[in-house]
Amino acid sequence: MTASTPAGRSGATSFRRAYLTGSRPGVRVPVREVVLASGGSVRLYDTSGPYSDPGHAGGNVLPPLRAPWIGERAARGGCVTQRAAARRGEITPEMEFAALREGVPPALVRDEIAAGRAVLPANVNHPESEPMVIGRAFLVKVNANLGTSAVTSSAAEEVDKMRWAIRWGADTVMDLSTGRRIHQTREAILRGSPVPVGTVPVYQALEKAGGRPEALSWEIYRDTVIEQCEQGVDYMTIHAGVLLRHVPLTARRRTGIVSRGGSIMAAWCLAHHEENFLYTRFAELCEILRRYDVTFSLGDGLRPGCIDDANDEAQLAELRTLGDLARVAADHDCQVMIEGPGHVPMHKIAENVRLQQEVCDGAPFYTLGPLATDIAPGYDHITSAIGAALIAWHGTAMLCYVTPKEHLGLPGREDVKQGVIAYKIAAHAADLAKGHPGAKAWDDALSDARFEFRREDQFNLALDPDTARSYHDQTLPAPAAKTAHFCSMCGPRFCAMRITQDVRDYARARGLSDGDALAAGMAEKAAEFTRRGGRIYLPLADAGPARPG
Amino acid sequence: MTASTPAGRSGATSFRRAYLTGSRPGVRVPVREVVLASGGSVRLYDTSGPYSDPGHAGGNVLPPLRAPWIGERAARGGCVTQRAAARRGEITPEMEFAALREGVPPALVRDEIAAGRAVLPANVNHPESEPMVIGRAFLVKVNANLGTSAVTSSAAEEVDKMRWAIRWGADTVMDLSTGRRIHQTREAILRGSPVPVGTVPVYQALEKAGGRPEALSWEIYRDTVIEQCEQGVDYMTIHAGVLLRHVPLTARRRTGIVSRGGSIMAAWCLAHHEENFLYTRFAELCEILRRYDVTFSLGDGLRPGCIDDANDEAQLAELRTLGDLARVAADHDCQVMIEGPGHVPMHKIAENVRLQQEVCDGAPFYTLGPLATDIAPGYDHITSAIGAALIAWHGTAMLCYVTPKEHLGLPGREDVKQGVIAYKIAAHAADLAKGHPGAKAWDDALSDARFEFRREDQFNLALDPDTARSYHDQTLPAPAAKTAHFCSMCGPRFCAMRITQDVRDYARARGLSDGDALAAGMAEKAAEFTRRGGRIYLPLADAGPARPG
Repeated sequence: MTASTPAGRSGATSFRRAYLTGSRPGVRVPVREVVLASGGSVRLYDTSGPYSDPGHAGGNVLPPLRAPWIGERAARGGCVTQRAAARRGEITPEMEFAALREGVPPALVRDEIAAGRAVLPANVNHPESEPMVIGRAFLVKVNANLGTSAVTSSAAEEVDKMRWAIRWGADTVMDLSTGRRIHQTREAILRGSPVPVGTVPVYQALEKAGGRPEALSWEIYRDTVIEQCEQGVDYMTIHAGVLLRHVPLTARRRTGIVSRGGSIMAAWCLAHHEENFLYTRFAELCEILRRYDVTFSLGDGLRPGCIDDANDEAQLAELRTLGDLARVAADHDCQVMIEGPGHVPMHKIAENVRLQQEVCDGAPFYTLGPLATDIAPGYDHITSAIGAALIAWHGTAMLCYVTPKEHLGLPGREDVKQGVIAYKIAAHAADLAKGHPGAKAWDDALSDARFEFRREDQFNLALDPDTARSYHDQTLPAPAAKTAHFCSMCGPRFCAMRITQDVRDYARARGLSDGDALAAGMAEKAAEFTRRGGRIYLPLADAGPARPG
Repeated sequence: MTASTPAGRSGATSFRRAYLTGSRPGVRVPVREVVLASGGSVRLYDTSGPYSDPGHAGGNVLPPLRAPWIGERAARGGCVTQRAAARRGEITPEMEFAALREGVPPALVRDEIAAGRAVLPANVNHPESEPMVIGRAFLVKVNANLGTSAVTSSAAEEVDKMRWAIRWGADTVMDLSTGRRIHQTREAILRGSPVPVGTVPVYQALEKAGGRPEALSWEIYRDTVIEQCEQGVDYMTIHAGVLLRHVPLTARRRTGIVSRGGSIMAAWCLAHHEENFLYTRFAELCEILRRYDVTFSLGDGLRPGCIDDANDEAQLAELRTLGDLARVAADHDCQVMIEGPGHVPMHKIAENVRLQQEVCDGAPFYTLGPLATDIAPGYDHITSAIGAALIAWHGTAMLCYVTPKEHLGLPGREDVKQGVIAYKIAAHAADLAKGHPGAKAWDDALSDARFEFRREDQFNLALDPDTARSYHDQTLPAPAAKTAHFCSMCGPRFCAMRITQDVRDYARARGLSDGDALAAGMAEKAAEFTRRGGRIYLPLADAGPARPG
């Protein structure tokens, strides 16, 4: 998919990256503009970054877009977080940028951040990022996971996955590397990522502790966090809610603790018989993160790993602790979001969100799925798209994707795409259900294109134009078929939309919206119709016996 | 997937088809039995038919399982429909069979059918079918569409698609053929289908009318219906709700009429300026269908074809007419279900079901999806799985699947599988949310297998064992990996479930469920733990530097 493809070339995706201009210098907000055969264009949110610009020089390093704004803030002194600025009543360039992307007033972005109901993850050391906001008042966002593991993958592959993920619409990425070149992999991703990057610092800390949770310490962890803050990580999953007293609550669970970080901290707690140092040292963590404006993503280390464990005591106990911690973070002007499950059957989803919003004062909820059933490994992007759409409709602000490889193995490139697509679907279904202004315009534009048989427009407006076009071409590849008024699904005679066009013209021509006109002179009108050639339905040429007229 | 595979052979799916015996001769009810490595077995609903029996001789023709029961009913005289029997207080062999499959008392099946809240589609001329019941009190069912079109496909391919669809769990199939060998294709499918087969008679009728809707007539249609009844079609989509006065209501829609049958009848109405003959002759249709016990599937010819048209005037006007017609059918002892949309955003789904249940006296609702958004052609099995799960949770009894090829072209074999899997997921997610007894046992069994690292059991319990196994093997193919206590997702050091096992043992051994014991002597216990070897976490051998103990 290239941005420089001119509009209308058959078979090539036809969109371009355009820019909205804000009030301040440098606020150039990317949008994806799909040019239609009908002459108009449709603007869609774009996450693909400067890679989609015709002028992009190649390579995987981006210009430090936000550097001037960051420098300005540093020069002024005081707390550099977006939350502090919002509380002071300021609309930062980042807020304006995000607001333009959302199509909302910048003041709304500021107010939601000030209230702690939204976050704008933007580390001062990640100037390459294009600002975006996460909160229930805004478009539902999608995170894609990537990262090396001990068993496979390389840094170059992860940068490629990042570029691939944002091409399909990922709003953030998380680098979950647990392999050996964690620092280098992360550096490459950060320097090349136009979207916020999240991490789970305990993974790298554990590597430093030789892979032994009991050998972890606050000092090792703290130094790891600082290292990652210095590189520019925008948000961090921190399992500060895994309290010693919560751990036994998992003993009777069907699948125990499924969070890597949660299990690591649980093991540490039990080995030391001490309270989780992430909890006891939380204020110090706040002091560190606020210096860089790194957003807390309070980890759900005790999230349920199966339908049976959903909304259980362990999960809810941790949630309450996360609520307490969110308030401590707020006192430090730190931005905070709250992580959530996991595996939740549909009937328990609304309650989940209600509780989280209540105990966490409306902080943004960031869930992993949830899977609405456990029976389909290999298809967990679908089992969880169902739960994700529902939980986002109820107010979840960001969805962490799940790929087809979930529970089975490390996702490859195609899995990343499938996960992102499934989650963009879930997110948008929720935007529609929430009545987000502008959301429906996308569906309407595509439906118009479909109804008017503007096939190329339908493909180009689709979440995945390449696949839509290729599926169509599998049965009707000829270029002429793209303007034909039927497709292989029903063939020329049975195309409902074909017939509908005729029906509509006929109804309109005869004023059939007037019930009285219908009742009057029915037979007369039928005769008239036949005299005029009976052209209610235009049979198209096909292989069977034709009956003209 | 063969039924004769002995339990435990590595790499092969390990299940067998077993039978529950009813009280009457010949009531042998198939179940799928998955044999577990742990020694037990799990029983799942099975739709794959006698093809899965070790004794199956091959070929595509099934024994006339129901013939004795049908013969008996014919001999006794009177109305042969399941509904008439239920109203007389009878539990037919078919009802008992279906009840055993559902794990519910046969009287429940009878009562729901008598009340019109369930249907058991079983034409007297389709004795090969294994009885099943459709209704909100029962497991949510899934239909797979197949059929030739003018542009592609053959009868042999359609029979193969039918066998493929039922292997993956389709509860019924609909033969939507519009090509030239409609009769022969349908015959082959019926003789070889263990599941009910539905059709849309107007398609074949239209072929007989030379492809011109205005040339249709009641006589042509009636004769087509009789032909199909004689062959054994179990249920028929009949667009008797497309009234002349409803048609203008579609004039201002974004995507008009998207139902093939609906558009055909609308065209006929306008051409003749007469009321839809399916409506005016409905009582005669009832007289025909009741002779064979063919179930009405009252077609939603005016269903919305895009998000924007959902729940509009045209759709709801037709729905009210369908309610009226359902009552006429009931007066004739005919079984009836009501078809539904289509494209419906999540926030309009509950209302849709509520209205249908109200105006149609609780008749089973049979929806096509619905798609929760229009933006992802190529992925409409997912966009609609979201809507389908939701609408089934709210009470829809059967879901008509949607494949990745929806809106783009004719589905091939792989698309059929993807559609069925996505819809089995949606149906089961709804069963769980509805609290259907026994539904959760499947999720629990698979989660147990996952937590205990019984990989083969996890695969064999999955909706698609082949894919689950193959995805796992992509990164960890060695047989030893199937019993290893980690997978490539996190690697040996980070496997949460691995750590959890240790955490759990430790918590239990030290009575940590008692909060007081926790508080007392923490340091003492820590020292004790270290003395005992500090074995909270067992590092497994991996390529990195190892630290023993």
